[in-house]
Amino acid sequence: MKPEIYIKDLSEHVGKEVTLKGWLYNKRASGKVKFLILRDGTGYLQCIVFKGNVTPEVFDVAEQLHQEASYEVTGIVKEEPRAVGGYELDATDVKLISSSDDYPITPKEHGIEFLIDNRHLWLRSKRQVSIMKIRHRIVKAIRDFFDNRDFTLFDPPIITPNASEGTSTLFEMEYFDLGKAYLTQSGQLYAEAGAIALGKVYTFGPTFRAEKSKTRRHLTEFWMVEPEMAFYDLDDDMDLAEEFLEYIVKSVLKNNKADLEILERDISKLEKIERPFPRLSYDEAIEMLKAEGHEVEWGKDLGATDETIISNKFDKPVMVHRYPAEIKAFYMKRDPENEKLALCVDVLAPEGYGEIIGGSQREDDYDKLLGRIKEHELPVDFFKWYLDLRKYGSVPHSGFGLGLERTITWICGIDHLRETIPFPRMIYRNTP
Amino acid sequence: MKPEIYIKDLSEHVGKEVTLKGWLYNKRASGKVKFLILRDGTGYLQCIVFKGNVTPEVFDVAEQLHQEASYEVTGIVKEEPRAVGGYELDATDVKLISSSDDYPITPKEHGIEFLIDNRHLWLRSKRQVSIMKIRHRIVKAIRDFFDNRDFTLFDPPIITPNASEGTSTLFEMEYFDLGKAYLTQSGQLYAEAGAIALGKVYTFGPTFRAEKSKTRRHLTEFWMVEPEMAFYDLDDDMDLAEEFLEYIVKSVLKNNKADLEILERDISKLEKIERPFPRLSYDEAIEMLKAEGHEVEWGKDLGATDETIISNKFDKPVMVHRYPAEIKAFYMKRDPENEKLALCVDVLAPEGYGEIIGGSQREDDYDKLLGRIKEHELPVDFFKWYLDLRKYGSVPHSGFGLGLERTITWICGIDHLRETIPFPRMIYRNTP
Repeated sequence: MKPEIYIKDLSEHVGKEVTLKGWLYNKRASGKVKFLILRDGTGYLQCIVFKGNVTPEVFDVAEQLHQEASYEVTGIVKEEPRAVGGYELDATDVKLISSSDDYPITPKEHGIEFLIDNRHLWLRSKRQVSIMKIRHRIVKAIRDFFDNRDFTLFDPPIITPNASEGTSTLFEMEYFDLGKAYLTQSGQLYAEAGAIALGKVYTFGPTFRAEKSKTRRHLTEFWMVEPEMAFYDLDDDMDLAEEFLEYIVKSVLKNNKADLEILERDISKLEKIERPFPRLSYDEAIEMLKAEGHEVEWGKDLGATDETIISNKFDKPVMVHRYPAEIKAFYMKRDPENEKLALCVDVLAPEGYGEIIGGSQREDDYDKLLGRIKEHELPVDFFKWYLDLRKYGSVPHSGFGLGLERTITWICGIDHLRETIPFPRMIYRNTP
Repeated sequence: MKPEIYIKDLSEHVGKEVTLKGWLYNKRASGKVKFLILRDGTGYLQCIVFKGNVTPEVFDVAEQLHQEASYEVTGIVKEEPRAVGGYELDATDVKLISSSDDYPITPKEHGIEFLIDNRHLWLRSKRQVSIMKIRHRIVKAIRDFFDNRDFTLFDPPIITPNASEGTSTLFEMEYFDLGKAYLTQSGQLYAEAGAIALGKVYTFGPTFRAEKSKTRRHLTEFWMVEPEMAFYDLDDDMDLAEEFLEYIVKSVLKNNKADLEILERDISKLEKIERPFPRLSYDEAIEMLKAEGHEVEWGKDLGATDETIISNKFDKPVMVHRYPAEIKAFYMKRDPENEKLALCVDVLAPEGYGEIIGGSQREDDYDKLLGRIKEHELPVDFFKWYLDLRKYGSVPHSGFGLGLERTITWICGIDHLRETIPFPRMIYRNTP
């Protein structure tokens, strides 16, 4: 019952009769011929139904097919360089599987709220299909990259008893008789335990922020990959992040050019993503902003505008390292050359897409870490297990986190995170 | 600063001097020689420190090393067929990185609660490392299997406004001003939207059940992979499940034999997992149970004991199909040859490991599905989008879900799900 072949396999069937199954993406018609564009999830195929080649009943089926109706089509595969994908089908038979009357998403323009309300249907559109294919590719590239470098996958818990970076943006729940629990914001602390057990690990799963931000760069539920490596210092960490981003972009360029074209992505911009990437210290970044006449104060975090100004000076991702420790997380190691700085790095995507990676070398000294936990007024009890990692065979270690959906927006060249995940979750939306 | 080489690379360095970094797994000693077992996440290596080969200071460092201390060791790589991994190191230098006094998990026996309390350290033990490596391999095999067969990854939402299979076992949360939301129990319904957009998709992420079951087969948080295929009927679905399980087991056998040996797994049992698998209808399963003198009633679901009796009759996974529709989910299509049966399949692992896969062909008729939703007293409004999939170009489609942790317990041959995930979540435990 499953399809014998898919559109992507047509090159092996030129001149032969095949039967395909799918949905009507679009249709053009004149009196004597119907051009049915079939989509089957692997591609698009123009099926030509000539009145003279089929029975009147079959021609009638072709005539009655509406957008998104499901159907089966039989015909001879022809090479046709001008067609999308390079092939056409000379139809000999068309069978309706199931109709589709008044499909709500027509080729005309729709408002974004209408489209998200109908996300389950919107996903069938050419643009959304291409974004999902690129999402798939990026996820695969991420996993292959780490799998090929002897990292062990390490799935951290989603339900956590404590927050790694403050409690104000946590989703809270009751956990049986154990009191409150929270949805994870990051698997990093757990990944550190993993790195000491397994050397090099990566987490890759959903993370959550109950942020009340209604911007195009925020989802409440998003996927994050977080490698963590024993014995890596900040330089090793930056080298890995650089190699990693290059690998992802090259993998998309190699495998998804057609999808990028559907999205009208300027591919030449992606072709420039080659190592080495520029590395700026925070101090240098501040100098650069001042030189641009932009008002900034040493000690403050870089804002979206600051990041855009910096990233616009380069055509590659920019690695900004050694921020003031004050504005960074408690677990970051201080720079031994300047205790006011954290051994951390943010990677800013080009073209103003902002931060896609945040990483650091971790504090590996028990007493210093305990002091920081106290300074930040975090519950020491909850961090006992985390402190243990510094008590029993502590080692220098580093890692970073890459936000999947932000990376997809950048690579796809699109505006809003909501199109990068099948069913986006935002402050004002948890349906469908 | 990162290690030049890891233990797994030693074959390329025989006769050469290398420096490795890691932790002391174990130590044997006589007066003039210390045998330090190094672990670095990629393997185990015996480092031999002869008093005559090193300075007194270095010998002293070797003498003082405690279990799980981190250290750096330099020496000459020797082939030694009798050693674990086939190599040894003649040490010329040993440097302590960080000590480990009174490491709580000693080679003696510990109670399970103590071990789970110290899960962050327990993960360093040989057995746990091997389970995590097999987990990694199974996840990779799952993803490779679908990626190589033109499936598109489709990450469903974790935060959902409704429950696909009843509300009694849901984790509940407040979602901003939108009222209650729930943690997903299954991505299937969303995957169906994905299959109609993309042809063949798979979800793979954490799922949640707030079940008050305190058995060795229950976690509140577990990972599930759910393929969903347009145009597949139940037979296609069973063929895919069979091929899939065979692929996973073969991948572990090919890549993780050493880990299986550490777990003392009877590998011959896994070597028998080859297609075809036995397929029994529910009716046949009931007959088989009765023939065994076991009391069962047609119409009831199979219990754990029933499943064990059936699976013990075979040395391969058993596919039990066409259960009474009454005891199965609302979305399953009925058997056209007998409306009382659902077109579904449960796959029971051998050796009494119970159900690891549940799947079905989905109801693709709008009116029938609407009727079922009403019969089950589910909120029709919430399912409007799901019904739309039957309104606009409906197609026959099928899928299944495989529980990752249950699959790991079976393949590893271990007793309890809690060892198959880095930080298990159970009714009485959400820490560390």
